[in-house]
Amino acid sequence: MFESAELGHSIPDEVYKKEIPALREALLDMQYDLAQAKKFPVLILIGGVDGAGKGETANLLNEWMDPRLIHTHAFGPTTEDEAERPPMWRYWQKMPPKGRIGILFGAWYTAPILENRDSKPGQSLDNHLNDIVRFERMLTDEGTLIIKLWFHLSKKQQKQRIAELEANPKTRWRVTDQDKQHLKHYEAFRTLTGHILRETSTANAPWMVIEGSDPNYRGLTTGRYLLDTIRNRLDSKTPPPRKASAPALELVASDGRNVLNTLDLSKSLEKDEYKEQLEEYQGKINLLTRHEKFKQISVIIAFEGVDAAGKGGAIRRVTQAMDARTYSIIPIAAPSDEESAQPYLWRFWRQIPRRGRVTIFDRTWYGRVLVERVEGFCNSQDWMRAYAEINDFEEQLTQHNIVLVKFWLNIDKDEQLKRFKEREDTAFKRYKITEEDWRNREKWDDYQQAVCDMIDRTSTERAPWTLVESNDKKFARIKILKTICEQVEHKLESLK
Amino acid sequence: MFESAELGHSIPDEVYKKEIPALREALLDMQYDLAQAKKFPVLILIGGVDGAGKGETANLLNEWMDPRLIHTHAFGPTTEDEAERPPMWRYWQKMPPKGRIGILFGAWYTAPILENRDSKPGQSLDNHLNDIVRFERMLTDEGTLIIKLWFHLSKKQQKQRIAELEANPKTRWRVTDQDKQHLKHYEAFRTLTGHILRETSTANAPWMVIEGSDPNYRGLTTGRYLLDTIRNRLDSKTPPPRKASAPALELVASDGRNVLNTLDLSKSLEKDEYKEQLEEYQGKINLLTRHEKFKQISVIIAFEGVDAAGKGGAIRRVTQAMDARTYSIIPIAAPSDEESAQPYLWRFWRQIPRRGRVTIFDRTWYGRVLVERVEGFCNSQDWMRAYAEINDFEEQLTQHNIVLVKFWLNIDKDEQLKRFKEREDTAFKRYKITEEDWRNREKWDDYQQAVCDMIDRTSTERAPWTLVESNDKKFARIKILKTICEQVEHKLESLK
Repeated sequence: MFESAELGHSIPDEVYKKEIPALREALLDMQYDLAQAKKFPVLILIGGVDGAGKGETANLLNEWMDPRLIHTHAFGPTTEDEAERPPMWRYWQKMPPKGRIGILFGAWYTAPILENRDSKPGQSLDNHLNDIVRFERMLTDEGTLIIKLWFHLSKKQQKQRIAELEANPKTRWRVTDQDKQHLKHYEAFRTLTGHILRETSTANAPWMVIEGSDPNYRGLTTGRYLLDTIRNRLDSKTPPPRKASAPALELVASDGRNVLNTLDLSKSLEKDEYKEQLEEYQGKINLLTRHEKFKQISVIIAFEGVDAAGKGGAIRRVTQAMDARTYSIIPIAAPSDEESAQPYLWRFWRQIPRRGRVTIFDRTWYGRVLVERVEGFCNSQDWMRAYAEINDFEEQLTQHNIVLVKFWLNIDKDEQLKRFKEREDTAFKRYKITEEDWRNREKWDDYQQAVCDMIDRTSTERAPWTLVESNDKKFARIKILKTICEQVEHKLESLK
Repeated sequence: MFESAELGHSIPDEVYKKEIPALREALLDMQYDLAQAKKFPVLILIGGVDGAGKGETANLLNEWMDPRLIHTHAFGPTTEDEAERPPMWRYWQKMPPKGRIGILFGAWYTAPILENRDSKPGQSLDNHLNDIVRFERMLTDEGTLIIKLWFHLSKKQQKQRIAELEANPKTRWRVTDQDKQHLKHYEAFRTLTGHILRETSTANAPWMVIEGSDPNYRGLTTGRYLLDTIRNRLDSKTPPPRKASAPALELVASDGRNVLNTLDLSKSLEKDEYKEQLEEYQGKINLLTRHEKFKQISVIIAFEGVDAAGKGGAIRRVTQAMDARTYSIIPIAAPSDEESAQPYLWRFWRQIPRRGRVTIFDRTWYGRVLVERVEGFCNSQDWMRAYAEINDFEEQLTQHNIVLVKFWLNIDKDEQLKRFKEREDTAFKRYKITEEDWRNREKWDDYQQAVCDMIDRTSTERAPWTLVESNDKKFARIKILKTICEQVEHKLESLK
């Protein structure tokens, strides 16, 4: 991995000085084109050996280009706010929007390096790297141009650099004990990072290793590489690379049975029974959210369902059980322009609750594989890859002590018609029924197929779907409350 | 203040039950109209005596209305992220956008109550309350409907409530030592909060005191008050109340001299001198940002200026001096749709830097009194009140150990023409010159007048304007760097 970056590359000053003006002009030009087009974000990840010029290069790029269109972030120790969310949350907060360049130091590569510094890379590291590959794949599929730069020094160069810094009274302070410590373990670090770089160098997001000892070589190489890569993407007429056409995902069962049409929608509850159980489960939810251990977890409740299946009413029965200071409800409609400038999962990441809090999504990230699929708002490659991306996203949530409860509320076509007509007749419900609802109804079968695929592909052990028979609202609400109780209770019991 | 709320108000159950359905329907109806119109946000502040039903009322409102369109926030102890910003920052993060209802508990009233609980209200409390009045005035002028609800209990009722809770084993846990402590100091608390409520009950944001002992009375009164107030605003054809027409703010000096045309724009620097001083001051800024005490402060640098006055080039000379991980540059252009749904200062509040960090604004909140004034993007009442609002905003920054450096870059009309033409000729600068720039140039005199007013009205001791003679770029850049050094240095020296 590092062979070509230990050759002692260097560029004489006179060559460097001659090359720079044209390079800078071309970089600026590229940058304004990028900002004007607003087609994709550029994410530059910077990693490397101590003293190989990581910071210097970021500063140089900001100097050469228009720094108003670049955002540079280094990540210190996690803050309180960050620690209460899954580890990737802090990086999602710093993603550059379309048309901008974001420079992130270390980012998601810092943890695997630090965690494996003193041990032989094993299974857990490879799992971690696999997660990173999948995450970056999602970003590039969403259109982000990822440029990963690793600045390298050979052991000899590293030693020499420390000696030089120490010799100069002005720079001596920059040499820390940690630097010396790192030098001692240079070989192990080289092996570890070599492994990490190899495993995470993919066609869509390859690492570029740059020798760091000569500033001229380092700067010129980096500048040219960025220019070529970004310019190339800007000028390409074809959309970002997609996977080749894949086999159809939906399997239409030859006996016509599926998870939805085999639901027993006649299930119902008597009024008295309903009232009793409503009180019971609402009381239980109330106690659970006041439980001492509840401060250690977060809860995300995801509601999806047929139009008019009763999501709003169900959500109200849930929130009635809780103190209003405990929950937030996020209704998902068209994205804001800030959200449109980011990968589709971004708008959900920004709403991840803190510890001890509940976030209820009224429609969710599954819009990708439901409405966007059926209405053709995204192409088939996009929604086909979304199943795996969503599973990855949800895995991050559940691994971080977030209880994720997912509901699909199902009613049949007749019941829907009845409810649409009722809504048209009730004054304060008139906003609930639109032309669009009637249009969606025409695509009933397509939606049902999309739902079946979604359930098959995203019902995981840690975040299973709960299908709710909703022709009878009372039955549906109790099933929802009970499921939330069970899943939160189960989580609390599992905590020490 | 509390007299009418100590009368032992109550509503019989049968009346309550009869009234509720119509009230709920009207509230829902109002809420959907509000969401549909997206014309203004509703901010409900809730305060009051312990046990007077603050939490219960918020829960009830969420139950009665559509909780998906309400956001309820309570504020705990300040987090790390919050402590690094001015006290009001955390509230700005929770402001409801247009069309939504936000319920905030305590909010900016918590601090003055806690801080004065054990002392006689004095000068500093009144200053604090005055700040609150000004802040709320700004919000209502920006269109926010502020509804302030105070839930009250007489001492007798308070005592009785605690006795009742204690008598019931199920609720005993809710009575804390603090409750008993508070009861002991009931009189002092009543006096203090009475004073606070009186001082902050303004025509645009009055307090409504509601007796809290009878849940029926409390709920019905609150519901009706909200319904009337919001419905009234929704149905009003006239825009939100503005101040009566005020005297013109600009004073055109009869001798034609102003702060801009008396600037000596011939000031310049030789190339050698420039190089030497550039190195000197950039080195100094670099050392200052690495200073041990720099971690205790934040820096905001605000750049305004005539088009083509050289803001971009100056900003680059500043950022060259710093590590890219230290600063962010925020170019201010048209607001995003999330920003447009908030008071105009919101988009700047969201960018306030953490400790040890520098934020550079390329154009700023002064857009209100410059481009928005001259181009008529807001009405004259809006920009006339902005001077005081901006001074309040900046006072909050500087009081929180934020160094605020403000630059106005001035060039004359001939110099601007020269630079516009140069820009049109240079390939990578072509994005820097637009039709709009030429149009703005036609309003040169109006802009100059707006700038003079701005400088007169917003140059304060803690956040003075620095006027930069910018016909010579070298001179301008050095003056800017030098000013930053001085102001940061001055701040660091003032710290213990």
